[in-house]
Amino acid sequence: MRIDIITVLPELLKSPFEASILKRAIEKGIVEVHTHNLRDYTDLSYNQIDDYQFGGGAGMVMMIEPIDKCITALKQSRDYDEIIYMTPDGETLNQKIANSMSLLNNVIILCGHYKGVDQRVRDAFITREISIGDYVLSGGELGAAVLCDAIIRLIPGVLSNETSALTDTFQDNLLAPPVYTRPAEYKGMKVPEILLSGNFPKIEKWREDQAQERTERLRPDLLK
Amino acid sequence: MRIDIITVLPELLKSPFEASILKRAIEKGIVEVHTHNLRDYTDLSYNQIDDYQFGGGAGMVMMIEPIDKCITALKQSRDYDEIIYMTPDGETLNQKIANSMSLLNNVIILCGHYKGVDQRVRDAFITREISIGDYVLSGGELGAAVLCDAIIRLIPGVLSNETSALTDTFQDNLLAPPVYTRPAEYKGMKVPEILLSGNFPKIEKWREDQAQERTERLRPDLLK
Repeated sequence: MRIDIITVLPELLKSPFEASILKRAIEKGIVEVHTHNLRDYTDLSYNQIDDYQFGGGAGMVMMIEPIDKCITALKQSRDYDEIIYMTPDGETLNQKIANSMSLLNNVIILCGHYKGVDQRVRDAFITREISIGDYVLSGGELGAAVLCDAIIRLIPGVLSNETSALTDTFQDNLLAPPVYTRPAEYKGMKVPEILLSGNFPKIEKWREDQAQERTERLRPDLLK
Repeated sequence: MRIDIITVLPELLKSPFEASILKRAIEKGIVEVHTHNLRDYTDLSYNQIDDYQFGGGAGMVMMIEPIDKCITALKQSRDYDEIIYMTPDGETLNQKIANSMSLLNNVIILCGHYKGVDQRVRDAFITREISIGDYVLSGGELGAAVLCDAIIRLIPGVLSNETSALTDTFQDNLLAPPVYTRPAEYKGMKVPEILLSGNFPKIEKWREDQAQERTERLRPDLLK
């Protein structure tokens, strides 16, 4: 998989891709992530890429021309499965969408900033709009990092133990059961006895019951 | 506001706080963000902070003792309003929660990793569990960065134009209307005429209608 991220803040995206699982996925050659500084695609003075809104109002808007130039340059080298715009009014990301997107080959992710991008960018170039949740962030960069993490960890070979992702919360529409590790007792707080029993069929049953009970209590909407 | 983030990957959290609005909020002294490496709070060899699950199964679990030590050390210096655990099965973050959390003074954010933390940590120390969405990430760090961004930008004095956040999507349970900037025509694509009219009451009405129409079409759930 190749991911091209278009941003006015490439420096914000540095450390998330230089640590942990994303770093290893890149080092293993399973995924390539390239960031592109939108300011390299403007002819205006001071590398301007945004301007005031037509009709007035607070907040700057990202201009269409630099975005058009950047996307056009990328498309000249390869075809893209999706050109994604990170925006709070997009389709809300969930595990099902992450699963399906982990199968794509080439993806562009455009990060909005300030008041967002000129609507004509969305109408003309964007194939999919994704939101990571119902809240507003100062830009699309953290959203892009979240989307990349959610997708990349699902690509076979990225997680050291492939069965690990399959037992995560949401993969079966259930919250995960509680987990415990050593010590068996800490300041009077004990691990449930069943987990120390060595009776694996019973442990499996306990976990399923816990997952069901926690989902019914905390997220009944997932069971609908 | 002071935010203490407990993590096994402090390096992942570097660049999000060194760019853009979060950086400026920190430089202005409006917010302090401190990261604490959990590995500094273990007495085990190789700075071990995780171990296998009781009862078997894939994925490591973060141990209670280092987390207890780190939280205890922080609490000795000040009182905390919330000790938050980032987890996909927590309460789903939304703009209303971000608004209320922007009023807090001292907050600890614990980032899970691997298969999560020992359940006794959640039972004994955590006051609030937050999820940024219904998908699984490789750790709580990106979630913590998202939570911080969503909260910090709402603190008065952080955004250069305070009215800007108030017109964002979700602040009035509506999606934002489309925005446009120069040029008025680009490759045959024109800005809606109303926005060039200079008739501000009419422009305001158009924006309200657009916000209403887009919300009804894309996110009818927000209107319930």
